[in-house]
Amino acid sequence: MTTLRELANHLGLSPATVSRALNGYPEVGEKTRIRVVEAAEALNYRPNTSARRLATGKSGMVGIIFRAARNLLVDPHFVEYLAGLSMGLADRELDLILRHAAPGAQLAAYQRLIASGSIDGLVVSAPEVDDPRIAMLTERNFPFVVHGHVGEDVAYGFYDIDNHGAFSRATELLIALGHRRIAFLNGSAGLAFAVQREAAFRTTLAARGIHVPARFVSHSEMSEDAGYNQAAKWLSGLHGLPPTAFLCSSTLMAIGVMRAAGEAGLEIGKDVSIIAHDDVLPHLRSEHFSTPLTVTRVPIREAGLALAEMIHKRIDGAAPKSLQKTANVDLIVRNSTGAAPQDGGRSW
Amino acid sequence: MTTLRELANHLGLSPATVSRALNGYPEVGEKTRIRVVEAAEALNYRPNTSARRLATGKSGMVGIIFRAARNLLVDPHFVEYLAGLSMGLADRELDLILRHAAPGAQLAAYQRLIASGSIDGLVVSAPEVDDPRIAMLTERNFPFVVHGHVGEDVAYGFYDIDNHGAFSRATELLIALGHRRIAFLNGSAGLAFAVQREAAFRTTLAARGIHVPARFVSHSEMSEDAGYNQAAKWLSGLHGLPPTAFLCSSTLMAIGVMRAAGEAGLEIGKDVSIIAHDDVLPHLRSEHFSTPLTVTRVPIREAGLALAEMIHKRIDGAAPKSLQKTANVDLIVRNSTGAAPQDGGRSW
Repeated sequence: MTTLRELANHLGLSPATVSRALNGYPEVGEKTRIRVVEAAEALNYRPNTSARRLATGKSGMVGIIFRAARNLLVDPHFVEYLAGLSMGLADRELDLILRHAAPGAQLAAYQRLIASGSIDGLVVSAPEVDDPRIAMLTERNFPFVVHGHVGEDVAYGFYDIDNHGAFSRATELLIALGHRRIAFLNGSAGLAFAVQREAAFRTTLAARGIHVPARFVSHSEMSEDAGYNQAAKWLSGLHGLPPTAFLCSSTLMAIGVMRAAGEAGLEIGKDVSIIAHDDVLPHLRSEHFSTPLTVTRVPIREAGLALAEMIHKRIDGAAPKSLQKTANVDLIVRNSTGAAPQDGGRSW
Repeated sequence: MTTLRELANHLGLSPATVSRALNGYPEVGEKTRIRVVEAAEALNYRPNTSARRLATGKSGMVGIIFRAARNLLVDPHFVEYLAGLSMGLADRELDLILRHAAPGAQLAAYQRLIASGSIDGLVVSAPEVDDPRIAMLTERNFPFVVHGHVGEDVAYGFYDIDNHGAFSRATELLIALGHRRIAFLNGSAGLAFAVQREAAFRTTLAARGIHVPARFVSHSEMSEDAGYNQAAKWLSGLHGLPPTAFLCSSTLMAIGVMRAAGEAGLEIGKDVSIIAHDDVLPHLRSEHFSTPLTVTRVPIREAGLALAEMIHKRIDGAAPKSLQKTANVDLIVRNSTGAAPQDGGRSW
């Protein structure tokens, strides 16, 4: 039986090109595609066969478990992440098994999936501080990589974005524009990225001697609704002077903040400023919001592609510490940010 | 080895309740959950073990292949659909294998997945008229069910929504409000649901003697961008009188239409009316758009749940024709629809 690598060597192409040709991707020219398909037939190449799996003792499958309770929200960013992950795995002849588990039953779901013997490795999403899944997988020495990380000297493979750099720069921009009452709509408390972002926000403001009232940091699901509800509460002014600027952990939250500001008769980029983190959802582009949004930006699809490469190497025996990557984040300034109101926004 | 059914019988509970208890869902009370977990341990119950799979000759896995080209869009509705599907499969101890394939390589991807021997059944998404995947699967007699259907006397199992009823009622509402120049932003040409919706739109207008200019029906990806671009073109008036009403195949398209109308200085629900089909994306709710949107609505998560039940029955030998369901669609009238402008909208 011919392997992908043997077929690629025979053709003088990379395994990724051969895989892409067989999967019909447009980057590979039609002439090359036909040559690859003909060689695959001539050499009796079959991707991912059960026979090969039996021979190698590997299932050729990678597991992912997503957090979803019935009637609760599923993160819309997840589909972009999944697209990157399944594409990256396909290039390496790996399949993706998808399970879900309620937030309180994550650990048990991981244990059951490993015990089933169906998978060679796991990709862990949304790590928390002191995440019991990571402790369990480390102890069992089961191959895994993590989307995100916690702490400085990390023993596992991970892909993360530079949350600290991103939220420091965003906060500094708002300070430079004269904002002093800056509110932060963060993701759920305890998630690694939320902890990193909040630390960056607080450190940056503290370095400029700006006090952050406790009420100006909120934690919630990153939905449009949550953004609206929180911003409407702040803008009502019932609990103290409202913020003049909003830092949001997602573009969906920013849409909610824009709705609340609109209802309060405020002009975005003039009366109030908004910055959000943009995972790049292709169907809803922040540059096209009714006021184009200032964002910190990295496509979340890149995370999926990078983690697919990492879990493949990890299953093949690479050391976890050799599989660690932190991606830079762009700050893109558009119309939703402007100088703080001269009167400090007190006159609304 | 104890099966889920044996465990459920022992406890006097339904298999679904036992599965939900083991998966930690909140519908099951803590007392029941503890009783189930203890019984599962006492009876040595292990879900989905490789041993059981070897014994039954089944893999316990269902495949789904999504359409995604590198650098092209992945449908954000897909994650909601996937949530329903993976939850419904988990209740039946089935796992989900997820693959993607470029639009031009769908058939080959299905054939490879079947040939790999990894799966017991398939769930087919986004059927087209004369879909070669359905023809191939029917001929091979491989278990499958379809999200959507084409034609009257259908031989395969499917879950669909009443696209014809939904788009007839939406069109009739616009006619009743006095609109005569109604434009339709449809999904990609050739997809089953797009064909059904367009037939409903045209038949309803023809029955009232209203002519539809060819330029008033467009086909595209259902993104915010596509909605904006198409509406901006129509509203420019460069190619003839603009529409006074827009019927959209998705709420994301409607956001784009709202953006184009806003830029043209038009008030939604007064100068122009908008209706969209709403698959219910929990993070972006049409009742909360800057103008609450009139919609035809069915949660797409229901499709996933229904298809999970169907493919399970199909794998167990149920006749395809016994597995066919068409869901009713609600028409929910909000502020984005209003009487057509008295001057017929000619004065803009």
